[in-house]
Amino acid sequence: MSGSLLAAEHVAEALREHLEPKVVQASARGALYAQLWQLTAERITGGKLVRPALFLDMVAALQPADAPAIPRAETTRLAVAFELLHFSFLLHDDVIDGDLVRRGEPNLIGTLVQRCPAEVSRHPGASLHWARSSAILMGDLLLTEVHQLIARLAVTPAQRIRLLDLLEHTVSDSVIGEHKDVALSHGLLPAELASILEMSREKTATYTFELPLRAAAVMAGAEEWDQPLAAAARHLGLAFQLQDDLLSVFGAGHGKDPFSDLREGKQTAIIAFARLTSAWPLIEPEFGSSSLSEAQGARMRRLLSECGAEAFMRALIAQERDALRQVLDSSGLPEPARRVLAELAERLEGRCA
Amino acid sequence: MSGSLLAAEHVAEALREHLEPKVVQASARGALYAQLWQLTAERITGGKLVRPALFLDMVAALQPADAPAIPRAETTRLAVAFELLHFSFLLHDDVIDGDLVRRGEPNLIGTLVQRCPAEVSRHPGASLHWARSSAILMGDLLLTEVHQLIARLAVTPAQRIRLLDLLEHTVSDSVIGEHKDVALSHGLLPAELASILEMSREKTATYTFELPLRAAAVMAGAEEWDQPLAAAARHLGLAFQLQDDLLSVFGAGHGKDPFSDLREGKQTAIIAFARLTSAWPLIEPEFGSSSLSEAQGARMRRLLSECGAEAFMRALIAQERDALRQVLDSSGLPEPARRVLAELAERLEGRCA
Repeated sequence: MSGSLLAAEHVAEALREHLEPKVVQASARGALYAQLWQLTAERITGGKLVRPALFLDMVAALQPADAPAIPRAETTRLAVAFELLHFSFLLHDDVIDGDLVRRGEPNLIGTLVQRCPAEVSRHPGASLHWARSSAILMGDLLLTEVHQLIARLAVTPAQRIRLLDLLEHTVSDSVIGEHKDVALSHGLLPAELASILEMSREKTATYTFELPLRAAAVMAGAEEWDQPLAAAARHLGLAFQLQDDLLSVFGAGHGKDPFSDLREGKQTAIIAFARLTSAWPLIEPEFGSSSLSEAQGARMRRLLSECGAEAFMRALIAQERDALRQVLDSSGLPEPARRVLAELAERLEGRCA
Repeated sequence: MSGSLLAAEHVAEALREHLEPKVVQASARGALYAQLWQLTAERITGGKLVRPALFLDMVAALQPADAPAIPRAETTRLAVAFELLHFSFLLHDDVIDGDLVRRGEPNLIGTLVQRCPAEVSRHPGASLHWARSSAILMGDLLLTEVHQLIARLAVTPAQRIRLLDLLEHTVSDSVIGEHKDVALSHGLLPAELASILEMSREKTATYTFELPLRAAAVMAGAEEWDQPLAAAARHLGLAFQLQDDLLSVFGAGHGKDPFSDLREGKQTAIIAFARLTSAWPLIEPEFGSSSLSEAQGARMRRLLSECGAEAFMRALIAQERDALRQVLDSSGLPEPARRVLAELAERLEGRCA
């Protein structure tokens, strides 16, 4: 994936250039606001930049060899916008989910809590309220920034409208998915497999795969590939999400608390399947218990594997991977574009092993 | 104010036409999401539409008699966007402030709590979490919608860029003001008069007065009035905010709990002034006490009046009104535009009495 690595480096540089002036401007509006921007910029530039890299790789892959070069500044700006959108969603999700940690490190909210002066931290809840309010507001700023970037791109009016359409569709899907996720967690929606898979697609796949891939077709002037790319995005998105769920329960290492999904009572496809088996009465009493011990967690994992949920997940993932291959084989997508997607699918298999 | 009333009616109709299809589309995405849109649409169309009406009045006032008519559909769309922006800010502010009520009625969050099924409401905090999460997400959707509407206006490219600039400036100011408000409430910023006045301007005046007035100049092709209108907006915004603070402590009726600001410990200009007087040691012990009785509230009000805070507020408001008059007299603004602003200033005096 050297193309992606180069692309990610290019975006990291562009993000730094985009965010530095924001931090400087913020310092004219007070120390607390400057701190908020500083901490935000550090976190954004430290990300893996998966979405912008995918977008840039696909733009390059779709461009006909004899076509005039696509203005690099505009694709870069759009790549930056996609990472800001990702971070904006993360911030509001973290507020909603009550998360203070991401990948083992304090997230923006956790960091703001830590930095809160002692006088404030003494009032129970005050530092958390301060940190969460800041995250809501920063999410609003970044969401605004994304729209501003896209609305001002130096592209044709038709391209701008298509990109605005895609952005609108993406925000809408992501909101609907998160809304459903909250509803599932409170039992306001039955935790059925179909709802859970739909929620995953809406909440994550749309902005992670569909938006970068379809926007690449717009920028490359290759809209004839819009529908195959949208289909590929759906399969990739679902496969990655299912695999995340699988790894978070059955994977080792992965940098995450191995039982956090089980402690939180997260409604995943694994659980939806297990509910339908005779093992459920043994699993249910401890599912969602915040005090789940290592031994209890290991036992639940064994039960989930023995009841067939693990095999079921692997089969679902294989099914999405096959569906993706079919899109690649039958859509007539140009070879370089197929290669970008095939490399993603391989990464999926690598993680599976 | 018959111009404004007509304008408000026109916007109310346009808002209904804009929101109805959203509610219909939402129903394809599940009953809970449809409910969220339905409740949101009811609240938005039930507002007083002050900002869109001011915008439309000023567009009409700035248009030279011999100029070609400004496309009505585009100004209406922009008026709709301003009301959506207002509601988006209200939603996130209500989440941050923990408010469940607005003007004596349950707000969107309060209504969602009431409508939560009993099984969910039994878990302490669950229905509130559901309602607040929904409000965060709906705020994101509306903020997106505002940008989408403005980015797609059928105006000249130069006008679109100016409107995007104004929107960016407005969101930024509103976020900075709200961030400061939260900081003040936790004692992270000293509650000095200058900070409080600045916070008020940023949080409310920018989107309530500056945005509609300056956007009107853009739409009317009368940008030579941009700076006088910006100055008028600052004075009007501050005067209205100070008067709100004054009325909420010293006003009668007004539909609001007369002591809610004192119970919440809201840092207003009244309190910043009172802090500097010898009455403060008598006021401080009960200021911000959620269990403040009627008698205690009445006593605090008397102390605030006797220490000069009430007179100080009236003087500040008069000062802003005078500054506005000076702008009206010296800027050379066209007569109809001056009339719109003078009518607003009169409304201010009417409320004062």
